[in-house]
Amino acid sequence: MNALAPAADIDWTAFPTEHELATAIFAELARCTGDGVGITRECYAPGEDAALAIFSAVAHAHGFAISIDPVGNLLVCLPGDDGTRPAHLIGSHADSVPQGGNYDGAAGIVAGLACLIRIARSGRELTTPVRLLMLRGEESAFYGRANIGSRALFGILSPADLAARSRGTGRTLAEAMTSVGIDLAPIRAGQTLFDPSTAASYLELHIEQGPVLIDRRLPAAVVSGIRGNLRHRRVVCRGEAGHSGTIPRWLRKDAVFAFADLVGRLDEHWRVLLERGLDLVVTTGIVGTDPDQHALSRIPGEVMFSFEVRSQSHDTLESFYELFRAECRAVGQQRGVVFELDERVYTEPARMDPAVIERLCAAAAACDLDPQTLPSGAGHDAAVFANAGIPSGMVFVRNANGSHNPAEAMDIGDLIKGTDVLYKAVTATN
Amino acid sequence: MNALAPAADIDWTAFPTEHELATAIFAELARCTGDGVGITRECYAPGEDAALAIFSAVAHAHGFAISIDPVGNLLVCLPGDDGTRPAHLIGSHADSVPQGGNYDGAAGIVAGLACLIRIARSGRELTTPVRLLMLRGEESAFYGRANIGSRALFGILSPADLAARSRGTGRTLAEAMTSVGIDLAPIRAGQTLFDPSTAASYLELHIEQGPVLIDRRLPAAVVSGIRGNLRHRRVVCRGEAGHSGTIPRWLRKDAVFAFADLVGRLDEHWRVLLERGLDLVVTTGIVGTDPDQHALSRIPGEVMFSFEVRSQSHDTLESFYELFRAECRAVGQQRGVVFELDERVYTEPARMDPAVIERLCAAAAACDLDPQTLPSGAGHDAAVFANAGIPSGMVFVRNANGSHNPAEAMDIGDLIKGTDVLYKAVTATN
Repeated sequence: MNALAPAADIDWTAFPTEHELATAIFAELARCTGDGVGITRECYAPGEDAALAIFSAVAHAHGFAISIDPVGNLLVCLPGDDGTRPAHLIGSHADSVPQGGNYDGAAGIVAGLACLIRIARSGRELTTPVRLLMLRGEESAFYGRANIGSRALFGILSPADLAARSRGTGRTLAEAMTSVGIDLAPIRAGQTLFDPSTAASYLELHIEQGPVLIDRRLPAAVVSGIRGNLRHRRVVCRGEAGHSGTIPRWLRKDAVFAFADLVGRLDEHWRVLLERGLDLVVTTGIVGTDPDQHALSRIPGEVMFSFEVRSQSHDTLESFYELFRAECRAVGQQRGVVFELDERVYTEPARMDPAVIERLCAAAAACDLDPQTLPSGAGHDAAVFANAGIPSGMVFVRNANGSHNPAEAMDIGDLIKGTDVLYKAVTATN
Repeated sequence: MNALAPAADIDWTAFPTEHELATAIFAELARCTGDGVGITRECYAPGEDAALAIFSAVAHAHGFAISIDPVGNLLVCLPGDDGTRPAHLIGSHADSVPQGGNYDGAAGIVAGLACLIRIARSGRELTTPVRLLMLRGEESAFYGRANIGSRALFGILSPADLAARSRGTGRTLAEAMTSVGIDLAPIRAGQTLFDPSTAASYLELHIEQGPVLIDRRLPAAVVSGIRGNLRHRRVVCRGEAGHSGTIPRWLRKDAVFAFADLVGRLDEHWRVLLERGLDLVVTTGIVGTDPDQHALSRIPGEVMFSFEVRSQSHDTLESFYELFRAECRAVGQQRGVVFELDERVYTEPARMDPAVIERLCAAAAACDLDPQTLPSGAGHDAAVFANAGIPSGMVFVRNANGSHNPAEAMDIGDLIKGTDVLYKAVTATN
């Protein structure tokens, strides 16, 4: 997928309002990286490069310095900041999924640029500098691995990740990274290529990928944590097939009725745990009887389904998983079926730093926003920074229609509100 | 599928016991109609013809008269019976499904032959004669229509039935029936070709196609009725898809959780109705999310499933169907989903005649059998005779592994027990 070169004749300092500047940046992004359906900004490829070129043009126009880190991410510093002191790092990603939306990732970079411009225009001297980190490769869509740009910084990109092939270009990730001038040797060696002493905090603004803020009529809110998950790709409930007319209820081992029973029990546990204030979502996205065996008048002998539970809390994940296993056993005993589980896959939740959350909530309140928090169900680079020990926080901006699709619908006014929170948080006691 | 010709050199009168005769008949059936996997006796084709030839050889050897009715079924009469007086008609079918078992259908004919032989050997003069009707085409496997031989007798075979093509030979049913010498004109005209005044009752012995008699440790039992059914081939539960991590429980419209809720409610209604003594089985044999849309981390926006309820009682079918509709509405309201139902398909239940049931139960008791009754979940020619107004009844013989497969496992001793009941019922007050 090619991308157009950014226009050279736009004066990025000439927009009278932040609203107009943001609108112009998104328009230019859409023009250069549109694919006819949505936008495509493949990482370490022309789409992501074009987006970074646009952001860089805006930064350069305002006199900011841009440096490239060892893994290809771009760091934007205000004049006078040599990048060595501990800073509040505003970060977000420049890439997108194929046929994606214009705001996922880009909104956070636009907010970061806006913050730097406000600071520069205010003439303030900050004790703790504010920098913008424009990350590459956050989406897993092309290489099956999320947070490539941040993981590379912390030495946790595996040889298998580097060998994965892009579903877009067919190149390996190693080839793609090399193509933008990245030296793979330290990445392959698992070296940490980010100096934690340069980051007092990591802050990321992102569009919400769910409907909560729309439901709550809130333009923006603070993220309480990033959910981890526990998954089984394939659970098989195995009972006994038979003629639907000839086997009475007490002799049945109906796999579908057993599955329904299990889901009903999990749903009830879920409801109760939510009432106790725990963070939890439960999903069986894939369900199916075997097309080679099933029939209208045949008691289903097996049904397969996927299982996923997400939570910000490791303990909640493990507790719910225990309930799941216990209910599989109970339903199995009562209904004469067996639940066969494939490999369990675990992804660690990430805690947002309590002090950072507090700072962001105070900033939200100062911006006349109800300082509510909500969890992030999807993953973000902030999780990588948080799990690397850097105090991290996130701001979500209201957005309709989810993300990863061209129908993403963020109001620029809401983005400005979120930017206000971010700006207030990095400048308040600074 | 070809079939072997029956052996000409077997003396069917020479077996010292009924047990040995029955064993020899089943062995000859298996030899002539075996297909390498199970047995195949396609109707109006060589397999069914071979089976009828074997049964006829046994009848002829004992001096019984055989006539062919207008639709190709064979009627066996004892010497001295001209077939015109009202008789107890013992009926069963000679055909099978492809790769089926040796006992489905044939067991009933063997039992009928054994009854006639007992009567002939006893020298008894019966007020009401006993005859054996060897029916063709009971299985729906080849033409998609069950009970062809009995429906043709009662003028309820449709033009569409006659135009259906065999999945075995590819011939139409009309071609196949013509090939065995049947005149189609009266069948096409919907004429009744069976004189009800010749049947005081219709009695059918059949292997049980479920596990109830094994569970109850009963060699044979009386059938209380033949279940009808109410079906939807395809119900779609439509909710709203979304990212599994970002949409909280209260904003979900999860189609699979709604489906599980519905099944749980139906299961509970079913349990309660059974406790009240109603006859009912409920099955959703086919369930599936859409492979083009579903994913591990996507809230399922839709799931499709089949729905079937069977009962001997029309009222129970309709009552449960009302519960089903009401619960679809209730779940729909509570969970923000809609259930879309395709065409409803109804098959009328058939009542076994109370006086016939009573006579069979009395016969069972006289044979030292616990006179229990159980419903038939599968259809039988007895349903056609019953719904045509002829007092009908059935005896089930214990059988493992269901039917329509080579693993059918009936003990010949149990068949003799069932034959005892049949014999006692047609001779007791006669």
